[in-house]
Amino acid sequence: MHPFSDNAALTIASLGEQKLLAKIRRWLGAAMPAAPHGMGDDCAVLPASPKRGAGPALLTVDPVIYGEHFDDAIAPRAVGRKLLARNLSDIAAMGGHPEAAVVSLALDPRTRLDWLEAFYRGLAALARQHRVPLVGGDLATHRGGLVASLTLLGRASGKRVLTRTGARAGDFVAVTGVLGGSLASGHHWKFTPRLAEGRWLAARPEVSAMLDVSDGLAKDLHHLVPAGAKPILFSELLPRRKGCDLCAALTDGEDYELLFTVRGTPAKAARLAADWHHAFPRVPLTIIGRLADHDAPDSGALDLAPYHGFEHFK
Amino acid sequence: MHPFSDNAALTIASLGEQKLLAKIRRWLGAAMPAAPHGMGDDCAVLPASPKRGAGPALLTVDPVIYGEHFDDAIAPRAVGRKLLARNLSDIAAMGGHPEAAVVSLALDPRTRLDWLEAFYRGLAALARQHRVPLVGGDLATHRGGLVASLTLLGRASGKRVLTRTGARAGDFVAVTGVLGGSLASGHHWKFTPRLAEGRWLAARPEVSAMLDVSDGLAKDLHHLVPAGAKPILFSELLPRRKGCDLCAALTDGEDYELLFTVRGTPAKAARLAADWHHAFPRVPLTIIGRLADHDAPDSGALDLAPYHGFEHFK
Repeated sequence: MHPFSDNAALTIASLGEQKLLAKIRRWLGAAMPAAPHGMGDDCAVLPASPKRGAGPALLTVDPVIYGEHFDDAIAPRAVGRKLLARNLSDIAAMGGHPEAAVVSLALDPRTRLDWLEAFYRGLAALARQHRVPLVGGDLATHRGGLVASLTLLGRASGKRVLTRTGARAGDFVAVTGVLGGSLASGHHWKFTPRLAEGRWLAARPEVSAMLDVSDGLAKDLHHLVPAGAKPILFSELLPRRKGCDLCAALTDGEDYELLFTVRGTPAKAARLAADWHHAFPRVPLTIIGRLADHDAPDSGALDLAPYHGFEHFK
Repeated sequence: MHPFSDNAALTIASLGEQKLLAKIRRWLGAAMPAAPHGMGDDCAVLPASPKRGAGPALLTVDPVIYGEHFDDAIAPRAVGRKLLARNLSDIAAMGGHPEAAVVSLALDPRTRLDWLEAFYRGLAALARQHRVPLVGGDLATHRGGLVASLTLLGRASGKRVLTRTGARAGDFVAVTGVLGGSLASGHHWKFTPRLAEGRWLAARPEVSAMLDVSDGLAKDLHHLVPAGAKPILFSELLPRRKGCDLCAALTDGEDYELLFTVRGTPAKAARLAADWHHAFPRVPLTIIGRLADHDAPDSGALDLAPYHGFEHFK
């Protein structure tokens, strides 16, 4: 069967990413466990077996693709670095530490050696910095294309894994760093994955759920909001990158900042922020709003409905 | 930097796979541990930490790519099945069992939904059969291409991991099943990964090294031969698929059979073969030769030099 069709109604473009993911869940059936042990969080969580003394294992995979994630204007060293960095950000989002990576490369035979060398050197430099051994991989021929996919195995720092599920109405919403303009500023090539910050947050019992912002806050925040609740954000509180307007901060994506919820009183949330600024004096942490019951009044709150983050396959 | 060049001398095609792998090792430097903890075996072996009670973890990744591994003539169900099967074969080759898989898909937006559904259903059917949970993955846009990459996490059954390193002069060489004609016969779409067989062999202390034959015996055997030794094979002993000549059995590749070495006397090797036939009465096991000192006489032995297995990027 030819895998492609020019009749859009027959193709994945007719669905978009979310509906496609729902279909894949159905197609996989019993072969795919429920999140966080299967699809649906930043990493898959492999339950700690009684035989193993350590915390649960984490598994995540993300690619970089020529013509989609990078083009001829980008230094190959930055491409290799980003391939690892975006996977490290997924481990950070669950409060884990990275243990080992494998890289799968699909390459045109005409791929330049100097391009590939710089790619691997960029990857290796970040791997050494975070002490992640690159333990293997695969090379395959792919005429006309260049797809690099990295799988990262990690482990939760304690017995607790901080997932996207766990928030409830009343929890505060907070975010690290600043949002927006990642592509224009080059932040997405240079960012430092928030690994230490993620582990610090996972060790605080009042932090109830977390993810890393990759498709824009307006889209990713929905993953943290439980049924029957809604987010009440105040637009003036949103930490924006210099030169970014509200729309950019909400929808640009590729921020690789940690978005999380905090259980408790306003004093408790303020205490967390104070402790954070002591631990990470150079990384902003901002409480940007709160989760409320679905039927609570919206007075002054930001309406997220007009804002859409990055949608794949559209 | 544009990643491709029409000047062949600048490209990976000028090197071929083996020299390219050697370069990658150098580029990665300290970020890549030595085999089997890094590149160079069927899976990467992650050392068992004292904190974990279980055996070492195994990590492997392999893709299927449209235009390279499959075309329009192939049922998408078979493509999904093979993506998992070839990774399972790598776990089998180290005597392990599979624990969890993640799938990374790079897809043209014009990808047909019915193609993708059949692909996932084929993958899920084999996953259920081997009780491998598909715990997650990634979907990304890749205009004009279709690359599916699966990463499989496994675990050694005991404390021992059977690697490619461990054979020495005097060891017998043995292979499971029959060789050759995998592409022509469709074996590579239908094969059952030798997981139970691999675990059985890893539990026998006289089995000294093992791999799965994917690029053809003539090429893959070299990985088992230590420095200062050479293989002495007898062509009449090679188990060939019906209709295959010697060259096909040695070089066709994609056999996904286990090739291993056995330490000890001829009587000990014969005993292993007898026990095997009791345990796996429907799977042939054939002792096809022996490793000898490099300066031993070659009387009657098969000269492998003219035979080359599958070479990538050529």
